[in-house]
Amino acid sequence: MENFWKFSPGLVRKAITLGVILTLSKSAIAQSASRNTDSLFIRNIFTHALTQGKSYTWLEHLTKQIGHRLSGSASAAKAENWTFSVLDSLGLDQTMKLPCMVPHWVRGKAEKVKVLSKGGVKGFDLHALALGGSVATPKSGLQAEIVRVQQWEELDKLGEKGIKGKIVYYSRAMDQSKLRTFEAYGGAVDQRVFGASRAAKYGALGVIVRSVGTRIDDFPHTGTLRYDSAYALIPAAAISTRDAEKLNALLQQGHKLQVSMEMHCETLPDVPANSIIAEIKGSEFPNEVVLVGGHLDSWDVGEGAHDDGAGVVQSMEVLRILHQLGYKPRHTIRCVLFMNEENGGRGGASYYQYVREKKEFPLASIESDAGGFTPRGFTFEGDASVFGPFYEKVSSYQALLEPYGLKFSKGGSGADIGPLRPLKGLLVGYSPDSQRYFDLHHTAADVLETVNARELELGAASMAALVYLLDLYGL
Amino acid sequence: MENFWKFSPGLVRKAITLGVILTLSKSAIAQSASRNTDSLFIRNIFTHALTQGKSYTWLEHLTKQIGHRLSGSASAAKAENWTFSVLDSLGLDQTMKLPCMVPHWVRGKAEKVKVLSKGGVKGFDLHALALGGSVATPKSGLQAEIVRVQQWEELDKLGEKGIKGKIVYYSRAMDQSKLRTFEAYGGAVDQRVFGASRAAKYGALGVIVRSVGTRIDDFPHTGTLRYDSAYALIPAAAISTRDAEKLNALLQQGHKLQVSMEMHCETLPDVPANSIIAEIKGSEFPNEVVLVGGHLDSWDVGEGAHDDGAGVVQSMEVLRILHQLGYKPRHTIRCVLFMNEENGGRGGASYYQYVREKKEFPLASIESDAGGFTPRGFTFEGDASVFGPFYEKVSSYQALLEPYGLKFSKGGSGADIGPLRPLKGLLVGYSPDSQRYFDLHHTAADVLETVNARELELGAASMAALVYLLDLYGL
Repeated sequence: MENFWKFSPGLVRKAITLGVILTLSKSAIAQSASRNTDSLFIRNIFTHALTQGKSYTWLEHLTKQIGHRLSGSASAAKAENWTFSVLDSLGLDQTMKLPCMVPHWVRGKAEKVKVLSKGGVKGFDLHALALGGSVATPKSGLQAEIVRVQQWEELDKLGEKGIKGKIVYYSRAMDQSKLRTFEAYGGAVDQRVFGASRAAKYGALGVIVRSVGTRIDDFPHTGTLRYDSAYALIPAAAISTRDAEKLNALLQQGHKLQVSMEMHCETLPDVPANSIIAEIKGSEFPNEVVLVGGHLDSWDVGEGAHDDGAGVVQSMEVLRILHQLGYKPRHTIRCVLFMNEENGGRGGASYYQYVREKKEFPLASIESDAGGFTPRGFTFEGDASVFGPFYEKVSSYQALLEPYGLKFSKGGSGADIGPLRPLKGLLVGYSPDSQRYFDLHHTAADVLETVNARELELGAASMAALVYLLDLYGL
Repeated sequence: MENFWKFSPGLVRKAITLGVILTLSKSAIAQSASRNTDSLFIRNIFTHALTQGKSYTWLEHLTKQIGHRLSGSASAAKAENWTFSVLDSLGLDQTMKLPCMVPHWVRGKAEKVKVLSKGGVKGFDLHALALGGSVATPKSGLQAEIVRVQQWEELDKLGEKGIKGKIVYYSRAMDQSKLRTFEAYGGAVDQRVFGASRAAKYGALGVIVRSVGTRIDDFPHTGTLRYDSAYALIPAAAISTRDAEKLNALLQQGHKLQVSMEMHCETLPDVPANSIIAEIKGSEFPNEVVLVGGHLDSWDVGEGAHDDGAGVVQSMEVLRILHQLGYKPRHTIRCVLFMNEENGGRGGASYYQYVREKKEFPLASIESDAGGFTPRGFTFEGDASVFGPFYEKVSSYQALLEPYGLKFSKGGSGADIGPLRPLKGLLVGYSPDSQRYFDLHHTAADVLETVNARELELGAASMAALVYLLDLYGL
């Protein structure tokens, strides 16, 4: 078909680096020659991904054969073993498991959350999911009037008098006017994370939270909560956006609403698990690492297709493509499939320890955890005082990625690579289009059928191209 | 919520134009002040579209209440009346119907295309759709051996000896290595458009064509064909990509395949129909028009959600938003919902006549006919010798749209505005992300559920912003 296999850009690059560039120093001729080589190699990466890419096939296996994979579950262990064996079969320099202990929360029997018939209100079921880490209700459930809270100040104003013995309903919606949905998520997710303990402080019996999602539909969005141990641990559930709109309408009509909650979730003792690591050793700087990663675990609904099956298979694919194209990196190129991003971050923490023990420098780390959507660019973490000099260098080759619709900007990187921050490497977030992500995030709707194969493969190619440039030119 | 209604950028603009700019001439201060005003107004357009946009609600009506709407059908007439009444209710300066005669092709009873049991082959049904405009088979159907053709040269090489009495199977797939799927479409759709007559030239009885689609699935993609009246009119159908792959595998194994086709389609006499036009009159140059449009008709399967329900509702929404925000245009801003883009282009042709008769200048025309996906930019038609000076002007305000992820590039515009070419206005294609379009294009899968509301509304906002800039700054 096309002769990628014969073209060894590693060799070409080496010839140019050692021959032309050393001879002519930084002349325009050398720069132009190497930029042409880069441009050709990047085009090969994209062609390979689009015509012979493995991301989608792998994601199909991960979602349909293994399914969702919450930390501590049997399917999470299956995902470890399967990704290990796939990576191990690629002929890379090393594949290994990096152990960590992970929380083991189980949902148990399906939750039931209902509005009860009372006054002029006819009862109905709410589409609900216990938040990850939530305690159960009493076995027989609990019932109480709900009190709506839109902003934190209202909660404090209501105080014990308004809250005690009730179920707090957090109703703040995502701000649809934000262009990037991640910004809107940031403006609403605090209710899910902190809502339970803040309500418990005033004696609430439980909380229900409007799902942090962009679409009005029947899919509740789960996600982690954080208890403050100073207060009682009370059960918390997300309800669908459509149900939240229904509650709002009824409350605005002046109805008092009685809600019942029945949840059977439980936190069991921590269990051993693993992140999966594979790498191509660097020929010049084996102890400096260009990392690409995603997280292996998911929530326990849907298939974790976009969150973060996409990041997992794309990270694997980056190494496969570069290896297949015969690229010999200067730095070590490593794929890390982190365990336990969703409810603990233990994989990220143990990876940080691993890097410190091996006294490595995490030159650049890229995380893909924003879905398998069409590529838009990369966001670079930190401010100029920390990462300033890196940006200048990195920006210099942004032009090579522009033909692929990729832009560089300041922004977050990823939860799993965040712990590397003190080591002062470059932290990068892969940034696909964000419009659809929060339709699906943490829901039963996050399934393979919502992933477009070309968009997914283009993401892998985009990351492979950036890894190539970072490896070649350093910081 | 936010006070869009009070902010009248038209007035602010006028004040700046008449006051500041005339006084200070083209000083840096004036330019910066007006760019700030532009930037604020454009942000208001986007906020309005994302929080109070009508595109999705309108598309829901068009797809679910009216459905697909092939030219000449009762539902196409419904779509005319409904869009007319919606536009008429917006308080614009004019809403009208522009008549044209359209082809009236009907599919009739569902087509049946089958591989027959013969030799070692077990028969099976092919997922097939008659191509638009195709003639029927004999009532009892036809049966023949198929002969596979990948490139036109093979057809000519086979000649009458290899083709006569057979069914030609055109099997060329889209080239997945192309970044923009429209390019790949261009490289395969010739089989669908010209295949029947070229095969008839050598005595073929019928043709089947691999669907021009990006995904391997069971949805056949219909679309128009063109008969050359020098040859017999033979029936032509598209088969799904998955079925095409099956046929390829069997043929590669050396099997001779017998296929039966039964199609009942028919071309009835032309019928009257209408394009729908609405406009806000220009205060300074009422006879110069900034057009935004899409096409009202669709194929007769699915719901025509992306093709081109999206373009229809977005074009309507551009006028609604600008009107709602109190914008008073210098040039006439016009929404045109063209009839009969898919199989005749009669709406585009009659609109060209209308413009000529009214002696208008089509200053700039933007067509949205590439789906309701996330916005990526605009493509500008023609080369520097024709449109050169326009580009310079237009490029000067590209920076105002960059925060919205929009880029300007050279490229095609749209089939409906194409006839305006001789009048030398600017022709622009709205260019959303192209990765998913040819999964759905002309299939039963092109339904509302594949449209993301935010992506759709962002498209309308993008077009409204460009219309605003084109109106304000001209060419």
